[in-house]
Amino acid sequence: MPTLRVELLEGRTLEQKKALVQALTQAVVDTLGSKPEAVDILLFDIKRHDWATGGVQWSERK
Amino acid sequence: MPTLRVELLEGRTLEQKKALVQALTQAVVDTLGSKPEAVDILLFDIKRHDWATGGVQWSERK
Amino acid sequence: MPTLRVELLEGRTLEQKKALVQALTQAVVDTLGSKPEAVDILLFDIKRHDWATGGVQWSERK
Amino acid sequence: MPTLRVELLEGRTLEQKKALVQALTQAVVDTLGSKPEAVDILLFDIKRHDWATGGVQWSERK
Amino acid sequence: MPTLRVELLEGRTLEQKKALVQALTQAVVDTLGSKPEAVDILLFDIKRHDWATGGVQWSERK
Amino acid sequence: MPTLRVELLEGRTLEQKKALVQALTQAVVDTLGSKPEAVDILLFDIKRHDWATGGVQWSERK
Repeated sequence: MPTLRVELLEGRTLEQKKALVQALTQAVVDTLGSKPEAVDILLFDIKRHDWATGGVQWSERK
Repeated sequence: MPTLRVELLEGRTLEQKKALVQALTQAVVDTLGSKPEAVDILLFDIKRHDWATGGVQWSERK
Repeated sequence: MPTLRVELLEGRTLEQKKALVQALTQAVVDTLGSKPEAVDILLFDIKRHDWATGGVQWSERK
Repeated sequence: MPTLRVELLEGRTLEQKKALVQALTQAVVDTLGSKPEAVDILLFDIKRHDWATGGVQWSERK
Repeated sequence: MPTLRVELLEGRTLEQKKALVQALTQAVVDTLGSKPEAVDILLFDIKRHDWATGGVQWSERK
Repeated sequence: MPTLRVELLEGRTLEQKKALVQALTQAVVDTLGSKPEAVDILLFDIKRHDWATGGVQWSERK
């Protein structure tokens, strides 16, 4: 049943996303004892001008 | 005041979305007694490679 | 697969919540053709001092 | 530590978004005493046909 | 229409929350030109053992 | 920068949550190359009557 939402700065490759969801699912299975099929993961790509830390968008950072 | 967020695998038509938001709004009105104008619904299209169940992205499933 | 998150002002009864999730699930099934078991709904009770409209918390409204 | 998620109808300019995240960050700093670097803000552009109020999508409104 | 969700470590006073929602609403009005009544803000208190940074829950930090 | 939100049925122990956030953080570090300190995780306990699958609340299931 656990559902994970992951917000990432855009730019990850499909390979990275594939590895990420596998590793996160395994982490839930290992620590909570969930069945793998019960784990849902949703990834959200966030554009660099849509994420700000300290009032500064990541598109403005070097 | 109820606010609904709906995450869907991408690919629904505009007609389906229109029917969906009407039916969801009616469901809230009927069961909670809310005024229709008080119901906000936001739809989020999720790409098949951004949603995984059991560690497998939906883009990988047949 | 659709997942719905519903934010409500606190105070709904268990009966209202039960009717709500049934009606919302049916609305998704009817308009998107999803199987009922594929529909997840999560309800979030929001305290009146934690929801503001127009800068005024609902705990401050009559 | 505060994290803000802001859902907006699509169409805001980069300038508006820049001003928005600066003003929101300042609002948090002024009222909670957070350090600016501790404030994260994520913006989500919502298409007009993906946001409905009263069962009517904003793409259908004049 | 903008809707803001704010996640905070638990422990803020009602006075702080009141000041926060007023300041955030004003920030949106000033930078986007929204009407105040169109701005919804929801606050979420997160317990210190439910927020981790760097793999360490805030309940474990000094 | 990745931020994870995890929704769980209530009832996990503090030990399980501690193990969970450590394992999830490691999964992100291993697959995306993020620094641990850049990973934020928020856990949300969902009551069994607030999560429904197939229109049935988990409080109603055996």
